[in-house]
Amino acid sequence: MPAPLTVSFTAGTVGVWAIDHIDAVVGESLNLAARLAVVEGPHGKPATDAAWTLRGTTSHLRYTSRHEATALASVQEGLGRALATRAALIPIRKNEAWWNLAQDERRAILEEQSHHVALGMDHLPAVARRLHHCRDFAGPFDFLTWFEYAPQDADRFEELVRALRATPEWAYVEREVDIRLSRPG
Amino acid sequence: MPAPLTVSFTAGTVGVWAIDHIDAVVGESLNLAARLAVVEGPHGKPATDAAWTLRGTTSHLRYTSRHEATALASVQEGLGRALATRAALIPIRKNEAWWNLAQDERRAILEEQSHHVALGMDHLPAVARRLHHCRDFAGPFDFLTWFEYAPQDADRFEELVRALRATPEWAYVEREVDIRLSRPG
Repeated sequence: MPAPLTVSFTAGTVGVWAIDHIDAVVGESLNLAARLAVVEGPHGKPATDAAWTLRGTTSHLRYTSRHEATALASVQEGLGRALATRAALIPIRKNEAWWNLAQDERRAILEEQSHHVALGMDHLPAVARRLHHCRDFAGPFDFLTWFEYAPQDADRFEELVRALRATPEWAYVEREVDIRLSRPG
Repeated sequence: MPAPLTVSFTAGTVGVWAIDHIDAVVGESLNLAARLAVVEGPHGKPATDAAWTLRGTTSHLRYTSRHEATALASVQEGLGRALATRAALIPIRKNEAWWNLAQDERRAILEEQSHHVALGMDHLPAVARRLHHCRDFAGPFDFLTWFEYAPQDADRFEELVRALRATPEWAYVEREVDIRLSRPG
């Protein structure tokens, strides 16, 4: 687990990733733009012509147990694989009912009831993933999850997203936007 | 549990609280100044003559269980009590070994081994407390804890601080500064 890394996602006219479509899943959408720039590190300046910028930080494990973390580490792959030319950025905000729960209650909903970690694990190593936290930044979302996968794993990715959205945990999601991207292979 | 609240602590020449002393407990200290201004909300501008400013945000419960949260809520008192004319601000940074632990490992050290929540509970309602998170802000500390108590409860407060510093959890603290303050009654 490296030190926290601030990452900016800026939609506009520049960036490696072409934005294929943006769909509102729950609540308000985000404006469409042609490209997305992903900038790691705190010094990224938002472009003046940006449609929007979302910023989050990688962080320590909030719910994952040692047993789960070890299992995940043994199969997951990193971002930036040459074959992973599809990506998704899924910003989510959870409602006040979620944040008012105590730690043991949130963990029980996330894993014992919703199998969030186990579902992600079932889709490794095909779907690589990085979670960015932003609730402490007081912006419009609590989490920005970034996924990368090869075109031939697109069905596996859809399956994962569908399964997560059907869980008891997702009843607490009050805003979700689904941004799909691609880059040349 | 209200929405996250950003709080700035600015040491300088203005503020309700007089800084009585600043001690380095582990690692580097902070510069001494005459007064501390506590500003709630994101719009506080640091004074140009500030010795230092630390900023954190209240957040959801990271380790506390429902059972513990309910017990705490039944006895704790809020900040700003007229008789609470003493305060302490204790910024802490934990080391990488702590942040590399999984959630269940950190919880076990914090409570089952160190009784952090139980120790705080034993000193309620005399010592009121508010925890601010700042690890995601990438500053010099991970947490800023603010305590308020009446002069006649000063011994109880010293007892709490001493007990926490003797726990297994504190072996992971790599920087700690202890700032003591007072205001007119």
